[in-house]
Amino acid sequence: MKDYAQLWLDYKEKRENKDCEELKRFTFSGADKEDVIVKNASAELTRGLAAMLSIEPVIVCADTAVPLEETDGEAIRDNEEYRICIKDGGIDIAAKSGKGILYGVFDVLRTVAVEKSVKAEYAEEKRVRPSEPLRMLNHWDNMDGSIERGYSGESFFYEDNEIIVDERTKDYARLIASTGINAVVINNVNVKQAASYMITDRYFAKLAELGEIFAGYGIGLFLSLNYASTIEIGGMDSADPLDEGVIAWWKDKMAEVFKKIPTLKGFLVKADSEGRPGPFTYGRTQADGANMLADIAKQYGAIIIWRCFVYNCRQDWRDRKTDRARAGYDNFMPMDGDYHDNVILQIKNGPMDFQIREPISPLLGGLKKTNQMLEVQIAQEYTGHQIDVCYLIPMFKEILGFKTYCGGSKDSVADIISGETFGSRYSGIAAVTNTGNDFNWTGNYLAGANLYGFGRLAFENGLSAEQIAEEFVRMSISGDKEVVDTIMEILLPSREIYERYTSPLGIGWMVTPATHYGCSVDGYEYDRWGTYHRADHLGIGVDRTDKGTGYALLYNEPNASMYNSPEDCPDELVLFFHHLPYTHKLHSGKTVIQHIYDTHFEGYEEAKALAAKWDTLKGRVDEEIFENVKERFGLQLVNAREWCDQVNSYFYRKSGIEDEKGRQIW
Amino acid sequence: MKDYAQLWLDYKEKRENKDCEELKRFTFSGADKEDVIVKNASAELTRGLAAMLSIEPVIVCADTAVPLEETDGEAIRDNEEYRICIKDGGIDIAAKSGKGILYGVFDVLRTVAVEKSVKAEYAEEKRVRPSEPLRMLNHWDNMDGSIERGYSGESFFYEDNEIIVDERTKDYARLIASTGINAVVINNVNVKQAASYMITDRYFAKLAELGEIFAGYGIGLFLSLNYASTIEIGGMDSADPLDEGVIAWWKDKMAEVFKKIPTLKGFLVKADSEGRPGPFTYGRTQADGANMLADIAKQYGAIIIWRCFVYNCRQDWRDRKTDRARAGYDNFMPMDGDYHDNVILQIKNGPMDFQIREPISPLLGGLKKTNQMLEVQIAQEYTGHQIDVCYLIPMFKEILGFKTYCGGSKDSVADIISGETFGSRYSGIAAVTNTGNDFNWTGNYLAGANLYGFGRLAFENGLSAEQIAEEFVRMSISGDKEVVDTIMEILLPSREIYERYTSPLGIGWMVTPATHYGCSVDGYEYDRWGTYHRADHLGIGVDRTDKGTGYALLYNEPNASMYNSPEDCPDELVLFFHHLPYTHKLHSGKTVIQHIYDTHFEGYEEAKALAAKWDTLKGRVDEEIFENVKERFGLQLVNAREWCDQVNSYFYRKSGIEDEKGRQIW
Repeated sequence: MKDYAQLWLDYKEKRENKDCEELKRFTFSGADKEDVIVKNASAELTRGLAAMLSIEPVIVCADTAVPLEETDGEAIRDNEEYRICIKDGGIDIAAKSGKGILYGVFDVLRTVAVEKSVKAEYAEEKRVRPSEPLRMLNHWDNMDGSIERGYSGESFFYEDNEIIVDERTKDYARLIASTGINAVVINNVNVKQAASYMITDRYFAKLAELGEIFAGYGIGLFLSLNYASTIEIGGMDSADPLDEGVIAWWKDKMAEVFKKIPTLKGFLVKADSEGRPGPFTYGRTQADGANMLADIAKQYGAIIIWRCFVYNCRQDWRDRKTDRARAGYDNFMPMDGDYHDNVILQIKNGPMDFQIREPISPLLGGLKKTNQMLEVQIAQEYTGHQIDVCYLIPMFKEILGFKTYCGGSKDSVADIISGETFGSRYSGIAAVTNTGNDFNWTGNYLAGANLYGFGRLAFENGLSAEQIAEEFVRMSISGDKEVVDTIMEILLPSREIYERYTSPLGIGWMVTPATHYGCSVDGYEYDRWGTYHRADHLGIGVDRTDKGTGYALLYNEPNASMYNSPEDCPDELVLFFHHLPYTHKLHSGKTVIQHIYDTHFEGYEEAKALAAKWDTLKGRVDEEIFENVKERFGLQLVNAREWCDQVNSYFYRKSGIEDEKGRQIW
Repeated sequence: MKDYAQLWLDYKEKRENKDCEELKRFTFSGADKEDVIVKNASAELTRGLAAMLSIEPVIVCADTAVPLEETDGEAIRDNEEYRICIKDGGIDIAAKSGKGILYGVFDVLRTVAVEKSVKAEYAEEKRVRPSEPLRMLNHWDNMDGSIERGYSGESFFYEDNEIIVDERTKDYARLIASTGINAVVINNVNVKQAASYMITDRYFAKLAELGEIFAGYGIGLFLSLNYASTIEIGGMDSADPLDEGVIAWWKDKMAEVFKKIPTLKGFLVKADSEGRPGPFTYGRTQADGANMLADIAKQYGAIIIWRCFVYNCRQDWRDRKTDRARAGYDNFMPMDGDYHDNVILQIKNGPMDFQIREPISPLLGGLKKTNQMLEVQIAQEYTGHQIDVCYLIPMFKEILGFKTYCGGSKDSVADIISGETFGSRYSGIAAVTNTGNDFNWTGNYLAGANLYGFGRLAFENGLSAEQIAEEFVRMSISGDKEVVDTIMEILLPSREIYERYTSPLGIGWMVTPATHYGCSVDGYEYDRWGTYHRADHLGIGVDRTDKGTGYALLYNEPNASMYNSPEDCPDELVLFFHHLPYTHKLHSGKTVIQHIYDTHFEGYEEAKALAAKWDTLKGRVDEEIFENVKERFGLQLVNAREWCDQVNSYFYRKSGIEDEKGRQIW
């Protein structure tokens, strides 16, 4: 018995496909049987079918081919595409590389695990091509074992500043590869203390070992880099990207690093952000910094991923001209086209920071000549700390589907990060992950749906949130239809419920400072983070129109005009873009204040209903899972009640306007 | 050169008394020259006069007497009283014990240090009797070296869970004895981790050593006790004060402790408070708990000091019936008379927790048959963290002078804690101290005035805040008249200035949660601590009248009627007792809202004026002191501006009422 759950690779016994003869014979077409990924794929297939169906398949490799060299995103996607069909009474999985084979194997195992008929599923050839070339998880794990914004225990990568490589490491690789993840950053973007030494002898051996394990599952290893490494570990007094000494140091360092960690694919850098060092310190541009590193990394085929989370985190709350929402755009748009072609800018989905509702960053659809990667967060920093159930895939679907009007028919966010809109060399999607060394990996067992779902959605943008939720439940909890339906009824509306009992109409940030869990309406109102609601006796919201900070105009038309107009702006974002009287009528017909009251009362009631639904599952799901989620719901309801009552009381006390329905406000 | 300042025992060279012949001959009347306290007194006198006046005095002990046995507060005061006069061309210091002699010596050294004429000062016999028998400092030092609510570095008593006894220990004893302190609790009332083992072999040797040093300066050693020691270190499963096993354990433990630490005078206990264990857990009363310990301690002549800081720290902010202000009274009044005569109840000055302005606890003047001790705080937890200058002696003067109307003519708080009002066996005053291992002991050098002043005021209640401030400045900074006047102009109004730019009209608690530094108007408003301002669009304040929580009626008449009436209640406390419209007219003629605006703007301006005054001292005071205070003023002004702007903005945004003077509100 392992001391951690197997989640969706639990491989419990299944009824469907029991007598499926085709599952006894597999051909891996294009596979090299000496390829470690192919070996891992075979082992996984054998293990899964044995456990689920007591089948021991015969696996044959045929038509061995050499994978494409992965010099751009298209080549990656070509290598990872797979086709599955029934052929000659067996199943044929065809791909250009071991990775494609592996993904195909997980497709078959998933089909069996969710108890779909294999015969039906593969009656016609099924062909799947990954939507994005890079599908990445970002760990914010610190080397002391803590995890920044981690709500699932400690790190399983580090303990006491040493790297852990054990059985769990490999199972982690299996778990995420099975969802379609092909890249991982294993350390916090805030590279501090011991982590600065990640690129020194002290850690090379373990990193090489870790990288090998990941590579066996088609996962590229990336490291977060301390931009000021020349100072922190190089003993130099500068990190100026144009300084010859700095450049020379990096040349030597990268030669060493890529030699010692042959599987390393590149680096993630958070520079000039929230107190981190960066090129601005030396009067250089972000492009100067990124290109310097990228030019050196290029000969190793490596990539520099550069985060766009750069803003003034020392804003004066009295200052109404500075707008944090503009910062990413203002800092990065002027250099569109200046970044070299192995640099990718990593852009958070919204212009602020992972709130429950934000507009899409205008950099997405703004930048046209720059490799781009979308960053989302499945660590529930602002969305309930994996205490509150908050299934995020519906939000990610909205983000991917957002039409940027950047030109042409392929202008959605999904199109941009697939690389197709602008023919980008590299592109992709990353999630700040929600894992830790808790038994169930994600704190709340249901938060596993976000880990699973992110990978699946990244691989196949076309999947619906419902499909993904159903897969997760069937594979990880139970195939019983009533159980599946009940849990889907919990997961699917949970994001909107969380939104309703927390911050209304896109305003965000009414959270307890620093921890970001729980309500504090004024928590950030008089602080330095650029996150204000500007509520007074008469109204609330931030004027980001042409009469305010002008942020709305950063979008392409017709989005700019839509957001700029209080009449046309969607209700759910109206306070993000406009300062409105409490008596302003929304499209819903409600006033702003009545919307606040109604959604908060409803959201809390809905949260209670979710908890009650979960209670009906007692005895019908694994007891440990049942108790884990039940305990979380207990905490969620306390939290939801506080949000409901505090937000309503705050606005009632401030506006003096009664609730039309006369409910209890304190 | 020591690595800490000498403060008021700096003994710089002085002009006055240069030719004073009388200072060359001293008689200690009643002193036993073998008494270590007398030896320390002689050494101090010799050292001080040598340094200040280059005089080497001849000291003779005469009329040796045996001190009174200190079985009650009166005996303590008798022993500590001293008389000084000029006799036979020398100075005669007479007392019933070495402690009295020591205090007399410090009186003479003080006279020399502040450059008063010794001849004039002692022309007639000067007789000083300490106002309170117990004059105590409470350290909230933890054994890991941290200090709860410490703003002056780390502990000088502990490091890495070991006790430090070194030269600084002795200098600390000298410093506080010189002000009149005669008792010290050396560990945090929240007794956790290693501190629970303070009463075990692990620490006895060091404690005995420490106790000896203190005893040599007339300072009694006290320890904070973990009420649940039977469980924490005794391996039992109960701390029920009526349990025979528990009682037996304590009998053995105390026999051991008092044998191993012969100088130990007793214990301070925080029970059933803020999560600490206590007798309530076992359905017993506070008296049950205190008396059990006291009965055992009695045979060692020891005292149990029991804190009255018991309240519900898990209040629902929606609950307007529960009133934290009532808690001390409601918990402790019903058992008045039940506490045994070596128990002292330690009562915070206000009913809440050391806010810049609170009414006096109604327990003071309520309890009539119980030993009482007043607790104040010179650690500036809510009063500026030793960043902001806040000279607290004027506040303590108000507290001591408060007329409780508890019967008879001696009915002030000072009378009660002197023991005279009710003929209490023991009584006194304690301050949570503001020291740490910073070079200057108190973080901000000017905060030394609170350490010095607390001791002086405790010894002589009749001293004015001005006298004390002047002594502190002359002894610790400079005797230059302009410098003295300037610093007094900074110290004396500083408490009212801090009040003005922070929380108005007695409302309190508008501070950043947890840290308690800086403004957060709603910081505690929706929290569990029982600390609310209840501000809405129309008004602010807590109704504690007969129509509200009834707290006002806990006072004796006429105080009860005064506080119960919004017309009669003093302005500075009006929002503590009443919920009032912003338009309510105060005695000052201003409305509540205009008072808020005016005091905040003024307070900030006044803080700037204090800082400017300090700047005029450049080159006229020690540079290290100058720079230390200047740096603190820099931080204070940032803080004061935030308070001013945030409070004004908060109430403007909430009330919608314009400032009459049209100043900038954000």
